[in-house]
Amino acid sequence: MPHIQLTNDLPGISGLFAQRPDTAGVLSQLAETLLRSGSSPLSRGERELIAAYVSHLNCTDFCAGSHSAFAAAQLDGGAELVASVLADADTAPIPPLLRSLLRVAAEVQAKAAPVSDKAIAAARAEGATDTHIHDTVLIAAAFAMFNRYVNGLATEVPADPAFYDVAAELIVNHGYGAAH
Amino acid sequence: MPHIQLTNDLPGISGLFAQRPDTAGVLSQLAETLLRSGSSPLSRGERELIAAYVSHLNCTDFCAGSHSAFAAAQLDGGAELVASVLADADTAPIPPLLRSLLRVAAEVQAKAAPVSDKAIAAARAEGATDTHIHDTVLIAAAFAMFNRYVNGLATEVPADPAFYDVAAELIVNHGYGAAH
Repeated sequence: MPHIQLTNDLPGISGLFAQRPDTAGVLSQLAETLLRSGSSPLSRGERELIAAYVSHLNCTDFCAGSHSAFAAAQLDGGAELVASVLADADTAPIPPLLRSLLRVAAEVQAKAAPVSDKAIAAARAEGATDTHIHDTVLIAAAFAMFNRYVNGLATEVPADPAFYDVAAELIVNHGYGAAH
Repeated sequence: MPHIQLTNDLPGISGLFAQRPDTAGVLSQLAETLLRSGSSPLSRGERELIAAYVSHLNCTDFCAGSHSAFAAAQLDGGAELVASVLADADTAPIPPLLRSLLRVAAEVQAKAAPVSDKAIAAARAEGATDTHIHDTVLIAAAFAMFNRYVNGLATEVPADPAFYDVAAELIVNHGYGAAH
């Protein structure tokens, strides 16, 4: 049961957005900027994969389920590829640059400390630019927030996992602004 | 030295905002909503104190210094009160409700897990409403992000600590929209 009373029965961040439209607006705009509309050398599918991976490391089922579905809908390899990354990012069939950026993201997930020189050097060796590194760190940091918001208030996961596919349809076609 | 090349010599998030105005806009708007313009039962000073406290727990000197200055400028008790909270929130001379909310914030800082029933019950016993709890969790979660962004990219702290007082003058009088 959530720690605050919701006047709706939507799961995860959807329930919080419906309850608090005052904060939902800017949070949705942040997700839209980081994961979709902002210019980035990372594709939308790759950015969603970083979001799903960090959410998985943070044990936030709602966000991991949502962003896995959004990543799967926008990546060659679909749900199987996303599941392989969440199961073991070290062996999943992804390009070396993306793997090196997931390692940067995992360090950001773990604590608010400088990413190690080793992880940065490894990403540079695979061709990471400043923009790759900036965007990866900021997306991973943003999911430190979204995951804490969703888990901290003890929100519910969807009763029916098909919720994630319906959400993916909405987000992939219409963006995060349509989600509240 | 920061992990990415900055074409300015501004410290902390200021340098990242100047470098990446595309993401600075929505991040500033989030800070403005959560800490200043959004309606909340928590005063601006109390919200800044939560931000400073979480940043201190996350060992993010730039954010702790900045938000301590912003809190000090807006709280009776000023810098001395803020320093006492950062030194030991359990004994600092603050109202019991605020102390109970700092304990909620500390749990959110520590990990992306549900805040304990004990911490929520203790806050309720001091008069916390759903809005107090929501806003505390979201502010603490947001600083999990801001702190990771600033520390993850290994940004610099100001050469002169007077930077924080100049920033406080700007933020307290003109808001986060003026900061980039």
